[in-house]
Amino acid sequence: MEVFLNGQFLAEGRAVVPVRDRGFMYGDGLFETMRVFNGKPFRMAQHLERMVRGADFLKIPLPYTPRQLQQFAEELIAKNQMPDAVLRVTLTRGPGARGYSPKSDGAPTVTMTLHEAPPLDPKLPPQWSLVRSSFRIPASDPLSSFKTLNKLGAIMARAEAEAQGADEALLTNTNGEVAETAGANLFWIYHDKICTTPTGRGVLPGITRAVVLEICQVLGLPTNKRVIKPEALRNAEGIFLTQSVLGIVTISLLDGEPVPPSPLVDKIHAAYCEMLARE
Amino acid sequence: MEVFLNGQFLAEGRAVVPVRDRGFMYGDGLFETMRVFNGKPFRMAQHLERMVRGADFLKIPLPYTPRQLQQFAEELIAKNQMPDAVLRVTLTRGPGARGYSPKSDGAPTVTMTLHEAPPLDPKLPPQWSLVRSSFRIPASDPLSSFKTLNKLGAIMARAEAEAQGADEALLTNTNGEVAETAGANLFWIYHDKICTTPTGRGVLPGITRAVVLEICQVLGLPTNKRVIKPEALRNAEGIFLTQSVLGIVTISLLDGEPVPPSPLVDKIHAAYCEMLARE
Repeated sequence: MEVFLNGQFLAEGRAVVPVRDRGFMYGDGLFETMRVFNGKPFRMAQHLERMVRGADFLKIPLPYTPRQLQQFAEELIAKNQMPDAVLRVTLTRGPGARGYSPKSDGAPTVTMTLHEAPPLDPKLPPQWSLVRSSFRIPASDPLSSFKTLNKLGAIMARAEAEAQGADEALLTNTNGEVAETAGANLFWIYHDKICTTPTGRGVLPGITRAVVLEICQVLGLPTNKRVIKPEALRNAEGIFLTQSVLGIVTISLLDGEPVPPSPLVDKIHAAYCEMLARE
Repeated sequence: MEVFLNGQFLAEGRAVVPVRDRGFMYGDGLFETMRVFNGKPFRMAQHLERMVRGADFLKIPLPYTPRQLQQFAEELIAKNQMPDAVLRVTLTRGPGARGYSPKSDGAPTVTMTLHEAPPLDPKLPPQWSLVRSSFRIPASDPLSSFKTLNKLGAIMARAEAEAQGADEALLTNTNGEVAETAGANLFWIYHDKICTTPTGRGVLPGITRAVVLEICQVLGLPTNKRVIKPEALRNAEGIFLTQSVLGIVTISLLDGEPVPPSPLVDKIHAAYCEMLARE
């Protein structure tokens, strides 16, 4: 396996960063994860737009243009002969001084790695069980709009859910409103409307979330962005998650209670798989 | 400069971690920073106790005993001939799989690095200016009791303060209560009492904070742990910070307004410097 690191393609064992990299010292950076299909990273432009917005906020100068990163990604996919995979792009402030002042040596670190992808079946989205987490997302933290390297909250919430035998954790924000899950955006169906939480207030503007809202428009399915409490999900006519690796994930159990299956979720999943294959 | 990495002492340039280290990927780990004086890391046992509590919470098995880590630290200080320095210990979940599930290869990463220390003058603590930050600490996040590698909040708050020409950022929690600063605990003097915020609610249980509470007991200075709003600090008879690198830092300006100097702060600082030299 080869890895992209700061302009070079290296064997995985040689892809290392100094222990004084600010990413390793403080989680001082950002990342993006996307699905690679037919040799192309799906919606890479949108993922990199989000990374550029985050880099502006953190004041980390991105050393390559999005166009260059796309070319490097295609080269990495070709070198590894992995046309169906998961691509992770990481940007950190690079090696720098100890201390919270964001002082670096001036050279940010950029890595790209490929990972095995679970197969997708256009006829059947994966089914997960979801449980409410004891962890909360700060509703007013500007950092929660970006995909930063500070992911202990998501890690602990996921671990807590897995310890209960569930697949994923449902997170509320500090206002007690439904936000998202440890690694995905949340959608539910109510009165035949495709509902999701508005971004901000602890909700990451997910790329697959945006793709699903596009799909709903194309299919003529009405959508609604709503702030709700977790109890309201009991009345949902279907619940699903959106994330970049699997696309659509059907929720079959919420806190141990069955969630009704919805043909609308299967329809959106099929449209997503079609889009992935076409673009 | 030599660096400790997983049982070995390496030249700084060779002290590297794989890009798949979970510390680098997600900030999945902890750290401690302490002052080294007369060749000894001050209160290392307490720092390592906090790291052990954090490692238990994150379920990262610490691969060395505190005793072994102390021996490695002393060896590192001797090798580098840096009897007055700053020591940083970092623990991560180690190289592992992509994804939030805390799956690692089973071998956590431990590094120790030495850094230059600013000089201490027992007669005069450093003076800093403090400004209120727009960033908030989640009041109910269990992770804020541990010194994790998720430090973007502190980094952004510090950067914001520095952009305003100040030295440090005063952070409130999501309840609007005074919590701590980006890199230190906060103390203030009111009616001759040495006051600080209680731990929990976003306040890290600082080691130097605990040392100062010890010093107050020895000196017979009354202390008080109080929850306050930032406005209440205007009535303080003195404000100071506690952190491991500098010990005591006097606050001379808060949001641009002068803070009265207090002989009590100088007295506590002198006692701290004496303790540092003696232990």
